[in-house]
Amino acid sequence: MKSNIPIDGNRLWSDLMAIAEITEDGIPYTRRSFSPLFIEGRRWLRQKFEEAGLEVRTDAAGNLIGRLPGSRPEAGTIMLGSHSDTVPSGGRFDGVAGVIAALEIVRSLRASGKPLQHSVEIVDFLAEEPSEYGLSCVGSRGMAGLLEDSMLRYKNGAGEQLGQAIERVGGDISRLAEAKRDDVIAFLELHIEQGLVLEAKRIDLGVVTAIVGIARVEICLEGRADHAGTTPMELRQDASVVAAHLITEIAAQAKTQAQKGDGHFVATTGIVEVSPNAANVVPGRVRLVVDIRAEKPGATQAFIDWLNLRSQSMADAANVKRPGWSVLSHTDPALCHAEMQAMLAGAAEMLGFSTLHLASGAGHDAAFISRIAPSAMLFVPCLDGRSHAPEEWAEPSAIAAGAAVIYETLLKIDGASALS
Amino acid sequence: MKSNIPIDGNRLWSDLMAIAEITEDGIPYTRRSFSPLFIEGRRWLRQKFEEAGLEVRTDAAGNLIGRLPGSRPEAGTIMLGSHSDTVPSGGRFDGVAGVIAALEIVRSLRASGKPLQHSVEIVDFLAEEPSEYGLSCVGSRGMAGLLEDSMLRYKNGAGEQLGQAIERVGGDISRLAEAKRDDVIAFLELHIEQGLVLEAKRIDLGVVTAIVGIARVEICLEGRADHAGTTPMELRQDASVVAAHLITEIAAQAKTQAQKGDGHFVATTGIVEVSPNAANVVPGRVRLVVDIRAEKPGATQAFIDWLNLRSQSMADAANVKRPGWSVLSHTDPALCHAEMQAMLAGAAEMLGFSTLHLASGAGHDAAFISRIAPSAMLFVPCLDGRSHAPEEWAEPSAIAAGAAVIYETLLKIDGASALS
Repeated sequence: MKSNIPIDGNRLWSDLMAIAEITEDGIPYTRRSFSPLFIEGRRWLRQKFEEAGLEVRTDAAGNLIGRLPGSRPEAGTIMLGSHSDTVPSGGRFDGVAGVIAALEIVRSLRASGKPLQHSVEIVDFLAEEPSEYGLSCVGSRGMAGLLEDSMLRYKNGAGEQLGQAIERVGGDISRLAEAKRDDVIAFLELHIEQGLVLEAKRIDLGVVTAIVGIARVEICLEGRADHAGTTPMELRQDASVVAAHLITEIAAQAKTQAQKGDGHFVATTGIVEVSPNAANVVPGRVRLVVDIRAEKPGATQAFIDWLNLRSQSMADAANVKRPGWSVLSHTDPALCHAEMQAMLAGAAEMLGFSTLHLASGAGHDAAFISRIAPSAMLFVPCLDGRSHAPEEWAEPSAIAAGAAVIYETLLKIDGASALS
Repeated sequence: MKSNIPIDGNRLWSDLMAIAEITEDGIPYTRRSFSPLFIEGRRWLRQKFEEAGLEVRTDAAGNLIGRLPGSRPEAGTIMLGSHSDTVPSGGRFDGVAGVIAALEIVRSLRASGKPLQHSVEIVDFLAEEPSEYGLSCVGSRGMAGLLEDSMLRYKNGAGEQLGQAIERVGGDISRLAEAKRDDVIAFLELHIEQGLVLEAKRIDLGVVTAIVGIARVEICLEGRADHAGTTPMELRQDASVVAAHLITEIAAQAKTQAQKGDGHFVATTGIVEVSPNAANVVPGRVRLVVDIRAEKPGATQAFIDWLNLRSQSMADAANVKRPGWSVLSHTDPALCHAEMQAMLAGAAEMLGFSTLHLASGAGHDAAFISRIAPSAMLFVPCLDGRSHAPEEWAEPSAIAAGAAVIYETLLKIDGASALS
């Protein structure tokens, strides 16, 4: 670990490993939002926030917030944070590394005695991962004023409404409007990359250019489930052969789009369901779910349009029907603030860390906070690109480097007259 | 229905509809081998056989046999038959139409007073459809001496061995060798086509040239289950894209092979299992089962060889592993007896029915009986090619036509000095 950095990397790592111990028995590392262990994790965080001298509260949307008031509170708030919840059998870094890094930054700031004009807040956003209520980024949506009444009525398997669950963890949906913020002048989130790029290129840190827009498209193809022995090849209406052709073209088309140099672009046919799925029956029906992600605004829609035309024409050519075409969801990309990107890169350079600008292919709380405040993200490399799994790993020195860069960037923002 | 035919088509149809009523409640038409309803169906058949003046017995392999002794029993036996068991939610024709047609043929023969040199037997072969014990064509295997000891130990879900089940329906596995026959001089089976060819070409009856050889191949592909958002297209090891490419080529290669005019050839990727099968994860693993059927000896093996090389080279090219390659089963095609094919076509022509020679893409008891006796099959068109489903349908006149053609063929065989 570099010795010139302005934060205590060992203390950061020690806290990160300590909260990792708060996990479901036998299924590390699991701290599902709204669960008893999630609440236990938050109790631990609240205590750490208090020990760091922060004013701690839970906002109406259920976000846990620790605040260090600035000398000129009217100047606004610089916000740091990420989320402490995990997927089932997740890892120890996504996204709690961003919360603990923020904690360490604020501790180091107070210890340095440097006065800050702006107030600084650390946020543990509620339920960033897809929750049992069918919604992700619950807390950051709430803070951006985008948590709609209809979403509050989503239910989990036990029939509890999301709104009730938010209140159970300390939120107050009757005052949800108060969770929306207009005082945040900058938001910074540290997160592991969850991808292979930084590691493959041996780069210390990634400056995020944008968080991709994500679309999910469902396609159902319907042919005829005929006898696999007696039905001649030319009389078949094989839904699976059409689906296979489509999967091949989706990958090829996405590769072409990605190679255009027009920003991050990926498309994945992650769900393939064939029926009747029997060895001696020509597949009569296939359901596909295609996930499309693009950094560039408009690129996702263009791909959806291509996919719509192409899947229909392929089905027509094979005498197969396409009874299902549905855009299940579609969000726009969130661009990271250009000046903050430059500040992150500059701070890294000053501290001797190499950086690369790259898009985030995964969704993050910063995508929602970017709707109400200039936002930026810093990626830390993770081993073998692995995430959402117990083997998820980032080096202590890498997380410390990321925290140090955000520390310096925060000071720069605090000292600047205003972000453009 | 034509009036010049030598059998009673209405009586045939009436019996066929009567036995169809013996089905599991609420799931027509289900008469699973070894089940109480199967045994009830056999009681019904035994009574019909007896009413027709036949000597009835169950052989050691569990086949129900009705026998009409000939004037020269030493001349051997002409055998007719098929099977009365069904798949779950099957139809009213596959294969009981062949049993009831045989019954009607023998009834009409006796009524005609024509003396027969050869003995004639009607057989309801045991468990032609894949049974709960994981084996099909149990009875015809037994009659061909191909029911092995290891097979008798196969168990159903309740732990009963196949051998015990055979004894439960009246067989005797201690005397299994006695079920093997060497006195059969000809075997004739009527069956619905279970395909679209006769209907599409508006042909009355199909003379079967061969019963295809069937191979089943399992292929497992293993890539990496990476994050669908963060993993760039060029760093992916997507098992599903390789599988899709392979499915497309299997269909194309099979079509090319079928168009060579070298006999019936089909290949089907009926089972496709993708994991983890989640919208936001690049598919890490795919399992395929490919069903390959060919009329021409050697064609199946040639396709398996191609598939082996091609699947490995495709996997290699995509940086995906192929940990699984397994030929699950492989049977040779069974050729139908040429002179009997000609006799069937000649009898049809004499009665005014059009015929087409075609291969059977499905397996049948005749494939096993062909190992011990000259065998032939006659196909009756079925509506829309549908089979193994409640909507399975063949016209009364078509079944009567098939029975009449077999009737005339039987007389011809009986009168001939010997089949070549």
